[in-house]
Amino acid sequence: MKPAILLQTDFSTTWGAVASMKGVIKLTDPELEIYDLCHDIKQFDPWEASLSLNTTEPYWPAGTVIVSVVDPGVGTARRASVALLCDGTYVVTPDNGTLTHLKYGVGIAAIREIDETRNRFHAKEDVSVFHGRDLFGYCSALLASGKITFEEVGPAYPVEEIVECEEYALRPKIDGNTVHTWVMTGLAHFGGIQFYVSNEAWKKLPCKEGDQVQIRITHAESTVFDAAVPFAKSFGFVPKGEPVLYCGSSLFLCLDCNQASFMQKYGVGFGKDWKATLALL
Amino acid sequence: MKPAILLQTDFSTTWGAVASMKGVIKLTDPELEIYDLCHDIKQFDPWEASLSLNTTEPYWPAGTVIVSVVDPGVGTARRASVALLCDGTYVVTPDNGTLTHLKYGVGIAAIREIDETRNRFHAKEDVSVFHGRDLFGYCSALLASGKITFEEVGPAYPVEEIVECEEYALRPKIDGNTVHTWVMTGLAHFGGIQFYVSNEAWKKLPCKEGDQVQIRITHAESTVFDAAVPFAKSFGFVPKGEPVLYCGSSLFLCLDCNQASFMQKYGVGFGKDWKATLALL
Amino acid sequence: MKPAILLQTDFSTTWGAVASMKGVIKLTDPELEIYDLCHDIKQFDPWEASLSLNTTEPYWPAGTVIVSVVDPGVGTARRASVALLCDGTYVVTPDNGTLTHLKYGVGIAAIREIDETRNRFHAKEDVSVFHGRDLFGYCSALLASGKITFEEVGPAYPVEEIVECEEYALRPKIDGNTVHTWVMTGLAHFGGIQFYVSNEAWKKLPCKEGDQVQIRITHAESTVFDAAVPFAKSFGFVPKGEPVLYCGSSLFLCLDCNQASFMQKYGVGFGKDWKATLALL
Repeated sequence: MKPAILLQTDFSTTWGAVASMKGVIKLTDPELEIYDLCHDIKQFDPWEASLSLNTTEPYWPAGTVIVSVVDPGVGTARRASVALLCDGTYVVTPDNGTLTHLKYGVGIAAIREIDETRNRFHAKEDVSVFHGRDLFGYCSALLASGKITFEEVGPAYPVEEIVECEEYALRPKIDGNTVHTWVMTGLAHFGGIQFYVSNEAWKKLPCKEGDQVQIRITHAESTVFDAAVPFAKSFGFVPKGEPVLYCGSSLFLCLDCNQASFMQKYGVGFGKDWKATLALL
Repeated sequence: MKPAILLQTDFSTTWGAVASMKGVIKLTDPELEIYDLCHDIKQFDPWEASLSLNTTEPYWPAGTVIVSVVDPGVGTARRASVALLCDGTYVVTPDNGTLTHLKYGVGIAAIREIDETRNRFHAKEDVSVFHGRDLFGYCSALLASGKITFEEVGPAYPVEEIVECEEYALRPKIDGNTVHTWVMTGLAHFGGIQFYVSNEAWKKLPCKEGDQVQIRITHAESTVFDAAVPFAKSFGFVPKGEPVLYCGSSLFLCLDCNQASFMQKYGVGFGKDWKATLALL
Repeated sequence: MKPAILLQTDFSTTWGAVASMKGVIKLTDPELEIYDLCHDIKQFDPWEASLSLNTTEPYWPAGTVIVSVVDPGVGTARRASVALLCDGTYVVTPDNGTLTHLKYGVGIAAIREIDETRNRFHAKEDVSVFHGRDLFGYCSALLASGKITFEEVGPAYPVEEIVECEEYALRPKIDGNTVHTWVMTGLAHFGGIQFYVSNEAWKKLPCKEGDQVQIRITHAESTVFDAAVPFAKSFGFVPKGEPVLYCGSSLFLCLDCNQASFMQKYGVGFGKDWKATLALL
């Protein structure tokens, strides 16, 4: 059975762009199965694309061909690439930071720049604004269908040259029982935030379920949130509406309210300007 | 051919959670086909999950494995279950009210609690907040792929013990040609509301297409809407913008405007506090 | 391999309607694969449905069965039809303007009205408000599965009788190096607008990449936008936040800002009342 193709973009599904990508894939090989990872990645933001790939990639079979198109530089100079991950999965994407977490997580075994002279779809009328369809989508279909090998994608280049999001370097500092970090992302839908500290790093601290953690979040030098919050296994261990700190399924430490939006309730946002300190009590 | 898996959640598709569920299903058996029922069920609301299942379930083939994850109690004590419906379809869900309408509608032939020691997916790093992926999604794949039988899901328990939404007991009262009921749900997208009175019950009243019905809707003792509305086959039988009462595809009686939102136009909401009286004129 | 079914509606995916359509297709033939074109077409607007089909249809394999349900007249008199396009693709739709662009673009080889006595799905309880499921969805499954031929859809009628959107007749006027037209549609998600002038017509003008174009947009006799904008290959050729004119993937001329919403930034909307003049400088 051929590997599935999994699509991630910042296009939304409110218009037909994603369906055009799928069409070109089906034109190339009607047997290919296509699934959606997410099409609501924060617009033009490779950091969010990278985080999302890192969260979902481990749960798909080896060999899956993932396409990620969050591409503020579409049509200009930036590498269009296919990465072969160390677990056998492929990622077809502009090399603009989207591969940051995978590079340091599962690892990237090799990367090749797409040879546009061979691996680009030519519509009846060419346009330069839709590489998601004509380049990334089409190339993913060639690869998943077996019409080209990974080597035939185009020339290899060193994994070291893969572009990294600058945010990645803003690593948490752990000072005894206190973590100094920032709010790496937030989830509009449920309203929780994620700190830039991995579940793994957190679990090395002497914090048991039920313990209180003093969490302080500041924005532009102002304190927006400062309270003791219980660390728990899941939402339901605190009263409805109350905040809870827990190990998230993204493998990073999360803060949300039980059946309510933490971001809305406390006016907290996310990004480099949102600093956070978590101190075991 | 293996049965399809059909997913319903309150996760939204604005992040990768649903895609992680699908990944675990594909990891278990790449041949399984996965479709979406709806991922915008009102958050934490088993009543809405139950209504949605009841509306859509009849149109899928017998044997389909439906997963429904609207789970305010994730990670705490509540049964994680698989129901076998009387028409041969399976529903994998927390037993928290989600099965209410199916229990009294198509009927539930048997129900089993998922044995987590055997039928739970273990990621590289376990978390307790994502039973949609690790428990319900994974177990649906085991069942749909034939890797386990229904009996191997876990221990059976009496159908009578299935948790019911308390709203279900607030049944309509039919008094001559007047129905006393409440606004059971509403559809944000088109703006129509559904009364808790089935099409079947309504059709027993002497109301023909074109007849006028006096509809009064109150909220917190205030009358929000009170007007004569025609009962018709479909929207297009009233002028654009005007209200119309019709038998909905949910199999409950609906009120909306032709090409406009009834809820927006008249400031009407839904829930137990929205009482309604419908009187034949 | 059976052709895929591709669904377009104005139902949104915030409730289970689309999933019920898919269920009836799977009930008819579980082997059929179903994909989504878009379910967020502007409500009740066949013009938008027509534009969307025109943009996406060319990228799907010949023989694909497309269902488009944007149907303000559901349940009333209007033809329910299946069009056979000149490239071999089928479109199952109310004949209410949705086929306008395909008629003048790829071309329509033949059209037949669905015989409801033979090709309508009968649920346990019939309703008149869901032709998307019971008529269009079901008929697409009969056709894609091979259970009926195109001839068995129902009686043919002349292609000339296909209903056209009146907007189509509001054709651009090209006067030397100036185009007089209107804003045909806009994309809420990214915020760009599309002029009613095809890329093909535009390319016949002496406008090279990098040239400036004076663009004036008026609404109700007021000028809303009036500035010189560069024509470029893609967004990235202008500074972030600045407007850029380019040949869109819809095959119509587009105006947007690089990584920002043109419609939001300049308060521009779309529709017949939004006139535009583009003059080469």
